[in-house]
Amino acid sequence: MNRIASPKNNRVKEWKKLNSKKGRDKAGCFIIEGPHLVEEALLCHAPVSDLIIDESFQIPAKWHTGNVTTWVVASSVINELSDTESPQGVIAIVENETKPIELNPEGTYVLIDGIQDPGNLGTIIRTADSAGVDGVILGSGTVDLFNSKVLRSTQGSLFHIEVTKGNLNEWIDRFKKGGIKVYGTALQDGVAYTKESDPGGYALLLGNEANGVSPDLLEKTDQNLFVPIYGKAESLNVAVAAGILLYGMKQNRVNQ
Amino acid sequence: MNRIASPKNNRVKEWKKLNSKKGRDKAGCFIIEGPHLVEEALLCHAPVSDLIIDESFQIPAKWHTGNVTTWVVASSVINELSDTESPQGVIAIVENETKPIELNPEGTYVLIDGIQDPGNLGTIIRTADSAGVDGVILGSGTVDLFNSKVLRSTQGSLFHIEVTKGNLNEWIDRFKKGGIKVYGTALQDGVAYTKESDPGGYALLLGNEANGVSPDLLEKTDQNLFVPIYGKAESLNVAVAAGILLYGMKQNRVNQ
Repeated sequence: MNRIASPKNNRVKEWKKLNSKKGRDKAGCFIIEGPHLVEEALLCHAPVSDLIIDESFQIPAKWHTGNVTTWVVASSVINELSDTESPQGVIAIVENETKPIELNPEGTYVLIDGIQDPGNLGTIIRTADSAGVDGVILGSGTVDLFNSKVLRSTQGSLFHIEVTKGNLNEWIDRFKKGGIKVYGTALQDGVAYTKESDPGGYALLLGNEANGVSPDLLEKTDQNLFVPIYGKAESLNVAVAAGILLYGMKQNRVNQ
Repeated sequence: MNRIASPKNNRVKEWKKLNSKKGRDKAGCFIIEGPHLVEEALLCHAPVSDLIIDESFQIPAKWHTGNVTTWVVASSVINELSDTESPQGVIAIVENETKPIELNPEGTYVLIDGIQDPGNLGTIIRTADSAGVDGVILGSGTVDLFNSKVLRSTQGSLFHIEVTKGNLNEWIDRFKKGGIKVYGTALQDGVAYTKESDPGGYALLLGNEANGVSPDLLEKTDQNLFVPIYGKAESLNVAVAAGILLYGMKQNRVNQ
């Protein structure tokens, strides 16, 4: 066990840099906090390098911390590193290691084009995990995956399914070449998802909260889907729409 | 047109009290901001009493402001009243007038038991509106409907469907007496929503983010539903689950 008493410690200063995208990109790692996220990272064998715990924090027996450097620190250090109002006494540093997404003709994939709200992105990843999605690809203009609010909203699903950054134009080509149907989401030239029959594997392309999917990407999709609005709302929240579409497509499959 | 130049004006001080639940409860009105929400309130004939605009704000021609007192104010007044980092130059005061929810045996209703996150409550109301829900009833322990983040997340759906506070125990009795099936949401003694056939009208009971629906309410439901998890996530966000259930039940209906 290593001990750090002061938030002015140089190592703490290095860790603190991980609270910015620039710092994360430079260091190639990110910071997670709270027992739930840290537990998910450890149980899923994510590359956790450091575990930073408050003096009063008890490490649960099921956490395998074999290769992890553990630091017992003063509460002031946790407060310095934490992004929340009520830190929960445990933080971990995780290496940013993305595994390649392998295409399976029967798989389901989600493509994200410019989602800006961290809560929305995290919730979509959590929803994709729930719906049994095989991989999520984040296009340019999307909020940083390792933003603390995104991580919190994933509720750990980030460690369950493959999530990677990529060029959506190239990914759409790759899916189509691999015989995987690509659905855009748009009212224009779209069909209600309830009318769509089981495509086997497919990729679902979700767009920015205000502007939707970029027109140049929509042009390349095999088909565009929309969620019918039965009331007076103009639109749905994008994470809610993702849930309706992913589960609805599954329900279409079951009903055939 | 009335003018207010200073944020220290007494009327501004009274309006500012509407940023707290206590102030709203005392005054019987609430505050909304931004052109989209204000427009929805006006177009839906919500009881808007005052419209407060920045000197540079242009009132759109389609806004009928006949009975509304309009105040042209300094930017500092808007900043004083606004809850956002980038105020958009328009605020309105709306009377808190809840209309009774009438029960229709073919209708769909949502009951909210103790949802705490403002974004979740607002998003559920927006989703309910999209799914054609007839009314939403907020039980005790639920975040205040007129909290600015709730209002913002509704995207105006608050003005499209009836939303009221109520005793959920009594409402469940009322639904059952009216021949409207009440579904809880719980894994325990639950069935996958995809297995449930069309009940005609129904009420869906959603629970707190961490603890779910209160056990005493779950005991009174006709049936409990759950959303199957196909991946490794422990659960779904409650607003996403609401969307999947409300749209999934509709899809069951279509497929019969």
